[in-house]
Amino acid sequence: MNGKFIVIEGLEGAGKSTAIQTVVETLAAHQVGNIVRTREPGGTVLAEKMRALVKEEHEGEVLQDMTELLLMYAARVQLVENVIKPALTRGDWVVGDRHDLSSQAYQGGGRQLSNATMQALKQTALGDFKPDFTLYLDIDPKVGLERARGRGELDRIEKMDISFFERTRARYQELAATDDSIVTINAQQSIDEVAADIRQALETWLAQ
Amino acid sequence: MNGKFIVIEGLEGAGKSTAIQTVVETLAAHQVGNIVRTREPGGTVLAEKMRALVKEEHEGEVLQDMTELLLMYAARVQLVENVIKPALTRGDWVVGDRHDLSSQAYQGGGRQLSNATMQALKQTALGDFKPDFTLYLDIDPKVGLERARGRGELDRIEKMDISFFERTRARYQELAATDDSIVTINAQQSIDEVAADIRQALETWLAQ
Repeated sequence: MNGKFIVIEGLEGAGKSTAIQTVVETLAAHQVGNIVRTREPGGTVLAEKMRALVKEEHEGEVLQDMTELLLMYAARVQLVENVIKPALTRGDWVVGDRHDLSSQAYQGGGRQLSNATMQALKQTALGDFKPDFTLYLDIDPKVGLERARGRGELDRIEKMDISFFERTRARYQELAATDDSIVTINAQQSIDEVAADIRQALETWLAQ
Repeated sequence: MNGKFIVIEGLEGAGKSTAIQTVVETLAAHQVGNIVRTREPGGTVLAEKMRALVKEEHEGEVLQDMTELLLMYAARVQLVENVIKPALTRGDWVVGDRHDLSSQAYQGGGRQLSNATMQALKQTALGDFKPDFTLYLDIDPKVGLERARGRGELDRIEKMDISFFERTRARYQELAATDDSIVTINAQQSIDEVAADIRQALETWLAQ
């Protein structure tokens, strides 16, 4: 695989969409070649159907936390095997709106599924596959959710209470601190400052 | 949990539907109480949606074997946690059209996913939960598929070639031979003989 896989992570309202634009523009300026954009969960016909199962309400049926995790990995495997790996093999670069770190943070941290469960699923579904570089947009969930609510109706996961998002953020921070391929961006700065930090982090990594 | 969970397993065309009738009638004659019937994958609003994802064709998108396995477990967790365990806790008896043994046979045997993968998924998703009693209807896939084809159009999995079903049957037989809670029924006998064997196996187990 000659292409690289870059992922943007963070809580609701952290500014992922704007960040992705900044990343794509920076990569284009570096003439890395073809850029493929993905989002998770989703990104294929089948994975988008799984996304709907995870996001929507279902006639009052409780979606078990373990089911949510299994669906996230089912969607991820479809995307990785059918889209991301073929793109990287072609030499394309892939910019992902979320990837496995989201499951670690939301289902592992937020839902408090055990580390044994999280590790077993990740290893079984993905093996050693992982992004080359991740930008984690760190934001206080109170600030992020206020921004997200301004955009409209919240989905099933976005309706969780604040403690869920605080646990999710804590797990993001913890994992970002122990993995050299993840750079934390302070997403509570102004849009220009965030964009500048993203560009700088990406340039530094590209120069390596 | 005071109720019992009884599962009927076997290849396409093995006669599972008729066997389930025989089991339900036998249990009713024993006045075991309320009987809940389930099918897998499926059996809840959400799990039926996952069943559709597994069974249908999707605009030419390849459903990865690992995705299929993850979807099977996602559907299974929904059914076990939302339907089967609550029923058993109420004291109901549950009669299931397929359960985990199907994944072991079809995804483990047929699709040849590794034992490590199969064990990791089962343990993570289900823990120690398992049926109290399983009737495995053993049939040569050539015979079974001919019966199934007589019923109409085949779904995505039923369209696999004969070697897939031979591997699936071999895994069924292997697992049935090493688990005392699984009784193998020769499903190539006449309908009456099969029913008699099922009744006898069930009566023997109930008498224990």
